[in-house]
Amino acid sequence: MSSVPSSDALAPSAAAPHRAHVRIALDERSYTIDIGEGLLGAAASFESCPKAAAAVIVTNTVVDPLYGDRLRAALAPRYPQVHTVVLPDGEAYKEWQTLNIVFDTLLQKGCDRKTVLFALGGGVVGDMAGFAAACYMRGVRYVQIPTTVLAQVDSSVGGKTAVNHPLGKNMIGAFYQPQRVVCDLDTIRTLPPREVSAGLAEIIKYGPIHDMAFFAWIEDHIDALRAGDVPALAHAVRRSCEIKAAVVGADEREAGLRAILNFGHTFGHAIESGMGYGAWLHGEGVGCGMVMAATLSQRMGLVDAQFVARLTTLVQRAGLPIVGPVLDQADNAGRYLQLMRVDKKAEGGDIRFVLIDGPGQAVVRGAPDALVREVIDACCIPA
Amino acid sequence: MSSVPSSDALAPSAAAPHRAHVRIALDERSYTIDIGEGLLGAAASFESCPKAAAAVIVTNTVVDPLYGDRLRAALAPRYPQVHTVVLPDGEAYKEWQTLNIVFDTLLQKGCDRKTVLFALGGGVVGDMAGFAAACYMRGVRYVQIPTTVLAQVDSSVGGKTAVNHPLGKNMIGAFYQPQRVVCDLDTIRTLPPREVSAGLAEIIKYGPIHDMAFFAWIEDHIDALRAGDVPALAHAVRRSCEIKAAVVGADEREAGLRAILNFGHTFGHAIESGMGYGAWLHGEGVGCGMVMAATLSQRMGLVDAQFVARLTTLVQRAGLPIVGPVLDQADNAGRYLQLMRVDKKAEGGDIRFVLIDGPGQAVVRGAPDALVREVIDACCIPA
Repeated sequence: MSSVPSSDALAPSAAAPHRAHVRIALDERSYTIDIGEGLLGAAASFESCPKAAAAVIVTNTVVDPLYGDRLRAALAPRYPQVHTVVLPDGEAYKEWQTLNIVFDTLLQKGCDRKTVLFALGGGVVGDMAGFAAACYMRGVRYVQIPTTVLAQVDSSVGGKTAVNHPLGKNMIGAFYQPQRVVCDLDTIRTLPPREVSAGLAEIIKYGPIHDMAFFAWIEDHIDALRAGDVPALAHAVRRSCEIKAAVVGADEREAGLRAILNFGHTFGHAIESGMGYGAWLHGEGVGCGMVMAATLSQRMGLVDAQFVARLTTLVQRAGLPIVGPVLDQADNAGRYLQLMRVDKKAEGGDIRFVLIDGPGQAVVRGAPDALVREVIDACCIPA
Repeated sequence: MSSVPSSDALAPSAAAPHRAHVRIALDERSYTIDIGEGLLGAAASFESCPKAAAAVIVTNTVVDPLYGDRLRAALAPRYPQVHTVVLPDGEAYKEWQTLNIVFDTLLQKGCDRKTVLFALGGGVVGDMAGFAAACYMRGVRYVQIPTTVLAQVDSSVGGKTAVNHPLGKNMIGAFYQPQRVVCDLDTIRTLPPREVSAGLAEIIKYGPIHDMAFFAWIEDHIDALRAGDVPALAHAVRRSCEIKAAVVGADEREAGLRAILNFGHTFGHAIESGMGYGAWLHGEGVGCGMVMAATLSQRMGLVDAQFVARLTTLVQRAGLPIVGPVLDQADNAGRYLQLMRVDKKAEGGDIRFVLIDGPGQAVVRGAPDALVREVIDACCIPA
């Protein structure tokens, strides 16, 4: 992790003010994240993508009208056929039935093993298109074109693909790396404010787990980020991808270190699942979940109240919830615990939390149920 | 391929008459195939399997009553919890809905990432359990315990896992290697004769594509093999696994060479899919498909009529069909071609066949539609 450049070293150069390339080093599965403006409509952005008879864009009903034509035009010079699969929008559709729409289209169009998939959309589209690519004919290549803050700084990078199961989020999936990630900062301009805020949760998380200098930078630029300021977003996306690249490069399949990227996600997934997928955005669950995980860290004696207050303030300033929802009137903490026990980090029924072991340093460990119950009671207020 | 020991070198040793170990060399994904009698009920067979809080046996309604208790007893010393998922039997159930039964159980039992799956059954169970292992929490470990000839000599080895899609066989899957393969020759004794014959198709195929000395040995032992003679089966399973190990070791993800293992499968998959999954056993489709592929090889000038006759005779002696079914009364050849175009080997809509380029040598290439139509017309007789 010491090889990650510091936040200060990352000021944009004068030549290409908001353009950056971040490399994910995974031997023969290595690839580049290309960050900049106007990328998805430029044929040059896809010059290094694999050649094939057919490209298939996987997108959704919201994103296709905004960017579908631009991407189709950019891919047309390289691919004789460009097909599009338009999925329904939202986390509630991130399941096998929707994935089958992709498979149906691929087979109906006679797509072969050389076909390249292009995931055009947010985290849900990216996770599903990536998993479809992992499974179709036992694996075809794919490219991520994330159009939300959340997808650009987190979900499109690192090869985690999945669909949800009624009993748990992201339970069915694969580690399967894309050929390239193209982050077009222009797409963020069309995002609803709620989606921008949700994405900020995944930017904020990199502070407590790894880089408090970046955290301080976010504190200084949170209003600019919420307003869609391009220089601020360019820096935030780049720095987030650099930290994620270092972590994924060290532990592709989450044998250990990579789990720290799940800070806020254990509580967050319970909220998402308990409220019904789609009621809370993923980033909203993570934002609130970080406050809960930081509170648990404090009760475990790992950080002080001042750190928790500082994180809580930033999460709130990002436009994210800081109070957990009540999932069960009779036994709220019990319901949270039940949902968290199916978390992928759990071992032998014991929940494992990503905790903050001093600002800028994460640790993965269990916690006594009684203490977790106290934290849930303290962080949730009945509606 | 020259490193594969010849058939003659493989006579069983006197010390352990029907015991053999074949290694699949795939770097950190390497594993051993253990072949012998009485293996699945012996705790010692699983001593090298990964430890975990829970083992989950994935089997079916036919195999569980025969071998479930024996395997549960063998696993009990090593795994504090041993769960069993019993799937419906048959190729018709090799699809996502059935796979979900496995996921439901894993989640309901609170199985974590360290859980080990044990596939106890034939090719369908192995393909589904392997794919479930590949996807559950993005990958858990699994062990193959094949109980049919077909699974022991082919499908349990090499890490190909999949489910069918209504538009094509094995279209949704993963390359995902097991930790170990345990081939208990005793299980073959309880197989119905039709299943034994189906398995022989996958043994016979290794002759034309790689080893005509083995082919001659099969000709000499075909009656013993059909009768379930253990020494004959032990040799056939071992030699088949050795050839498969060499091919898979050279080309794990079917970039080239591995496709030769699909000899007979292009026509065979069309038959299986066109007749409705389960109407023909996979091995029956492959047996008839080899006759059709050999006939095509002859029409392409690659082998002579004598070779085709010799192969046809052996396929028939194995108890397998040598005449293709009529899939469409109006345009039978057209229906075959339509079904074969969704084969995973197809590229840009062109079907690629595994042909015999002289006995013992396979080649993958296209063929003119007109010639393929002639072969289909010659090989299919209306019911």
